[in-house]
Amino acid sequence: MMRNNISFVTLGVDDLERSTSFYKTMGLSPHVRSNPHITFFDMHGQVLALFAQSALAADANVPIEGSNVGGITLAQNVRSADDVQRMLDLAVQSGGTMLREASEPPWGGLRGYFADPDGHPWEVAWNPGITIDDDGRVYLPS
Amino acid sequence: MMRNNISFVTLGVDDLERSTSFYKTMGLSPHVRSNPHITFFDMHGQVLALFAQSALAADANVPIEGSNVGGITLAQNVRSADDVQRMLDLAVQSGGTMLREASEPPWGGLRGYFADPDGHPWEVAWNPGITIDDDGRVYLPS
Repeated sequence: MMRNNISFVTLGVDDLERSTSFYKTMGLSPHVRSNPHITFFDMHGQVLALFAQSALAADANVPIEGSNVGGITLAQNVRSADDVQRMLDLAVQSGGTMLREASEPPWGGLRGYFADPDGHPWEVAWNPGITIDDDGRVYLPS
Repeated sequence: MMRNNISFVTLGVDDLERSTSFYKTMGLSPHVRSNPHITFFDMHGQVLALFAQSALAADANVPIEGSNVGGITLAQNVRSADDVQRMLDLAVQSGGTMLREASEPPWGGLRGYFADPDGHPWEVAWNPGITIDDDGRVYLPS
């Protein structure tokens, strides 16, 4: 079952430095866990991330161009590794499409992707480094 | 200044009934304010909305195809009508692009759109029917 939370909203960007600078000028402060490959902004229990468009598409296993994806993914973090494949299977049973079966990303944990009926990609992620509070909100480690 | 909140995530869909059914099967319950034109899901202080792809693109004033938009918009609700144009102007000063100046949508209030440097559209909305709590989270009227 999906919880009533979107844990991460990740925007694909062409130039991480330029895009980070834009959001800083808008008033947001990068989280200390940001690094040269990804910028995180804590959004009060949700994370807004900036990530290279090509890397984002490769991780979600979707083409960069010509899909309904448009360089943005939503994610829901789950509380156990077993929940990843379970939710992916539920998505397929519900009329979604499997994009990537549960598998280990280079940064640890476990994740997979499904697409909803319009092709919007959702990542389902288990990441032991991410805290999920009682309301389902997520917080990066400080 | 942007707050650390994404108020709405709106997915463009081809068939509202089909997409609503998908998210219901996934475990989410539509909010009572949903109607035949839009489906709302309360996401714990954020709203996930499903809206016809064509209507979403028209409202954001972007082409449906061929852009980096891909049928999804993010929104930040603000506390006063004056804040709408103020944030749009800040976005342009910060290196973003104006998509739609502050103007009244058919459903009331005031809204405009800017694009970030990669073309991701953000709506800036003032809607007196939406409650914004002290943490910046938004709640639809019940």
